[in-house]
Parts: sequence; C-alpha cells; structure tokens
Amino acid sequence: MDLRPIGVFDSGLGGLTCVKRVMELMPGEDIIYLGDTGRVPYGGKSRETILRYARQDIGFLLSRDVKAVVAACGTVSTNGLEEIAGDYPVPVFGVTDATARAAVSATRNGRIGLIGTKASIRAAVYDRKILALCPEAKIFKKACPLFVPIVEDGRIGDGEPVLELVARQYLEEMGDDGVDTLILGCTHYPLIAGTIGRIMGPEVRLIDTGAEAAAQLRRLLENGGALARREKGAYSYFVTDSAEDFSRTATIFLGCRVEGAVRRVSLEEK
Amino acid sequence: MDLRPIGVFDSGLGGLTCVKRVMELMPGEDIIYLGDTGRVPYGGKSRETILRYARQDIGFLLSRDVKAVVAACGTVSTNGLEEIAGDYPVPVFGVTDATARAAVSATRNGRIGLIGTKASIRAAVYDRKILALCPEAKIFKKACPLFVPIVEDGRIGDGEPVLELVARQYLEEMGDDGVDTLILGCTHYPLIAGTIGRIMGPEVRLIDTGAEAAAQLRRLLENGGALARREKGAYSYFVTDSAEDFSRTATIFLGCRVEGAVRRVSLEEK
Repeated sequence: MDLRPIGVFDSGLGGLTCVKRVMELMPGEDIIYLGDTGRVPYGGKSRETILRYARQDIGFLLSRDVKAVVAACGTVSTNGLEEIAGDYPVPVFGVTDATARAAVSATRNGRIGLIGTKASIRAAVYDRKILALCPEAKIFKKACPLFVPIVEDGRIGDGEPVLELVARQYLEEMGDDGVDTLILGCTHYPLIAGTIGRIMGPEVRLIDTGAEAAAQLRRLLENGGALARREKGAYSYFVTDSAEDFSRTATIFLGCRVEGAVRRVSLEEK
Repeated sequence: MDLRPIGVFDSGLGGLTCVKRVMELMPGEDIIYLGDTGRVPYGGKSRETILRYARQDIGFLLSRDVKAVVAACGTVSTNGLEEIAGDYPVPVFGVTDATARAAVSATRNGRIGLIGTKASIRAAVYDRKILALCPEAKIFKKACPLFVPIVEDGRIGDGEPVLELVARQYLEEMGDDGVDTLILGCTHYPLIAGTIGRIMGPEVRLIDTGAEAAAQLRRLLENGGALARREKGAYSYFVTDSAEDFSRTATIFLGCRVEGAVRRVSLEEK
C-alpha cells in the first residue's frame, strides 16, 4: 500500500472529468489536481510550448510527493508526453494508451472517429497507437476548436443552439464516414456527450479518455500493490489563475461540489 | 524627432489591428509588436493574472528601448493598466481613454453600447470614463466570450452561420436598448465589424479601439515633437509561442503580408 497522493493535471479544468472517474474508481486515494488556468488553453499552441508547460506541471506535482501523475489532457497526451515520461521517478502517463485500446476493443467495423483540439489532431498519436493494435483500422479525424470555448461558456445543454450548430458542422462528415466508435479526445467533451451522441446516433460508441485513463491508473496501482485502501481520500486543488473563480466552474466538470482546499500557485518561477 | 520605435503589445494577435492603424497614420515609425501567444487569451483570466502578464509584456518592450508603449488589448487596458502606467519612464497607455472620448463625441442620444471579453466588461472602466465625460450617458454592456475563438477559427465572413447565430444572440438585446454607438471593446472585433454593423443597423456608429489608440499615439508624439519623419519605418514582431505559426494568422489581422522579422521570446524567465 502506498498512501502518497495521485497527481492529475490539465491545462485548465477539463481534467476534472478524469478526477471524477478516479474518485469513483479509487475512493481511498488522495488526489492533488493542478489546473494551469493562468495559461489555458493549450489546444491551439505549438508542440514545443505545450511540452514546456507540461514539464512545469509535472514538476509541480512531483514536488508534492505524488506516487503517479496522470496528464488528464488530450493536448498534452498527444504532444510529446511519452518522450519525457521516462525522465521521472514515478509513473507519468496520459490518456492515449488506454483510449486507443478501448477504441480498438469497442469497434466492430474498424472505423474509428477522433475529435479533439487542433494540437491533438495535428499530432497523429492516436493514429499510430490504433494502427499498432489493429492495422486494418480506419481513422477519421476532426479538430473541433470551438467545443472548448462553448463548454467554458456554459453552453452545454442538449439542444443549445450554438452547440447544436457547431456540433452538426463538425460531426456530420464523420457520420457519413460510417464510424461506429468515436474518441472524445479532449477532457471537456464528456460534458457535451449527450449532444455528440445524439448527432452520431445510438449505434456509435463514445470513448471517454478520462475514464479510460482512470481505469488504467487503477490497474497500475493494483498491479504494483500501491492502491490506498482508505475509507475516503482527501482532495486538494491548485490553479495558476485566481483560486476564487475555481469552485464555480469546477463543480460543472466534477459533477459535485468541490471538497478540499483550492490554492493558487506560480509555475513560472520554478 | 525621436527615432526610437513604438512598442505595441496584446495577449495574442488581435493587437495587430491597432498596428495596422499605426502604420497607416505614422508610416515613418519603427514598430515593435509583442504578442503573448503562449498565454493567449487573457480575456477569461483574473485581474491579478492579467496585470502580472501586462507588467512582463511592458518590461520586454522597454528592454527594446521603445519611446512609447500601447496596450492594444481591451482586456489589459481595462484591468489595472493605468495603475501601473506611471511606473515607467515612457508613456504607457491603453485603448480606453481615446475610445471613451470617441464614443461620447459620436453619440447623439447618449446611449452607448460596449462589447468585450468577460474581463473587460467586469472591469467597468469604460462606464467610469464615459460618465466622467458625459454624466447623462447610459451604457449597455455585453460580454461576448465566443467572439475571440470564432475569429481565431477564421469564421469571419459575413453570413458565416456560427458567427451570425452568436452575434445575433449577443447583440439583439443591445439593439432593443436603442444604442446609437457601439464600442468594439476587443481588438479582434474589427474583423467581424461587417456582421456586427449589419445586425446593429446603419444608424449605429461602431468605435474601433485600436484606431482610436493609434490616433491618440499620433497626437502624443506630435505634441512632444517625437514623431519619426522617416519615409518608412521598420517592423519587428515577437511572440511567446511558435514564430512559425505567426505569419499566416498575422496576415488576417494586419490585412497585408507581414514585413519584418518574427522572433520568439520567453517572458517567464525575465
């Protein structure tokens, strides 16, 4: 048993959809969340900048003595995380491995869709991982840069007109391509899964990257005898912009009230 | 005559709409532009974070020996810039003073609209400035957080369906309020002025903050005998994310090809 906390980070608050899954799957774990809200979003930035920020994020979590780090961020996970993961003394992983496996095991016709930020789609990491597992798979991709601002503007209700119009534009072509599995390649997207699922149709299986990463984390800790078997873990949250603004928005992503301290931290001076 | 360059900065590339006006009004001036593309956008961030970034931006421009600094950014201009402007040895100013004057002189019925980022609207700086000039004015405000991502996604053509839907939602209420003058309180908005103007109607005068700031800069330099009366100035551009991505997007905001060197710079280590 290893009672050190789990570290989870994201460019902003989307990664809390993954934290929610970690809480459900591993209620005994302490969790430290870092949201780089002072520099959010990462999704339109260059690979080099994304990776520099990711190193600072991981460095901060390691300074809090975590036993594992999850990059609950599609953009970081697809922009070089694996190249640097080996530089750290604890497991550091993103959402792509578990997600690629889940997509390959879900598909029946081998036609897999992927939506994400511009940087995630540009990186082509999922293509490589899916094809390694299933060489005959066909991957259909679409960058959806307006989904994050739409979610952050709170326009997430099913039938919300702007969401509906944008989602139809982004997804219609993918429906025509006959995908039967769609990777929601950004931790914001589970909040609009209702709309996405309705447009894609009931036969299309949606893959939630945060949920898959949480399941991988549980396997990893279990296999290493490192699961914390407490009754209930403690949670703490760090952000790089105002801590005051955090709780209201965090509630949307967590699906429940924020328990635990919220503190502001500076990464730039590290 | 002062041959030192003019410094202009913004959170990203929107400030180039102001640079364009400076080039037109003062063709003999050298210009150094800084776009903090590694941390863009500022508009949803806290006042404290915005001001910290602004100090770093100004510090960088001063290190290049500029004779004046223009914050071509509605968010910075309305979030504490004036409190720190006096700390620097050259004039440092934003877009609000000249814009408030222009709006007051344009309005006939005293009903002035203001659109901008969340942070700009929250700040209520325009309200204060307009009421100081014209105590009977009525100000109608609306935060338009989706306009920046829509512009950055290139959805700027008149009649573009997402822009049209969002713009109607944001502006309809303001039309009902009977404003005859509308401040485009973000340097991105001139790119969608066609759509905004059509929805508001021909009787509503649109105020472009970057153009007003450029006009103020010209008056300031002229009054101080500091205008550079060269044939043509030289331009250089600095960004905090990839320099490679800059030129394509910059062309949209400048309305012409980028002339001059583009370099990447780090502000965090300063």
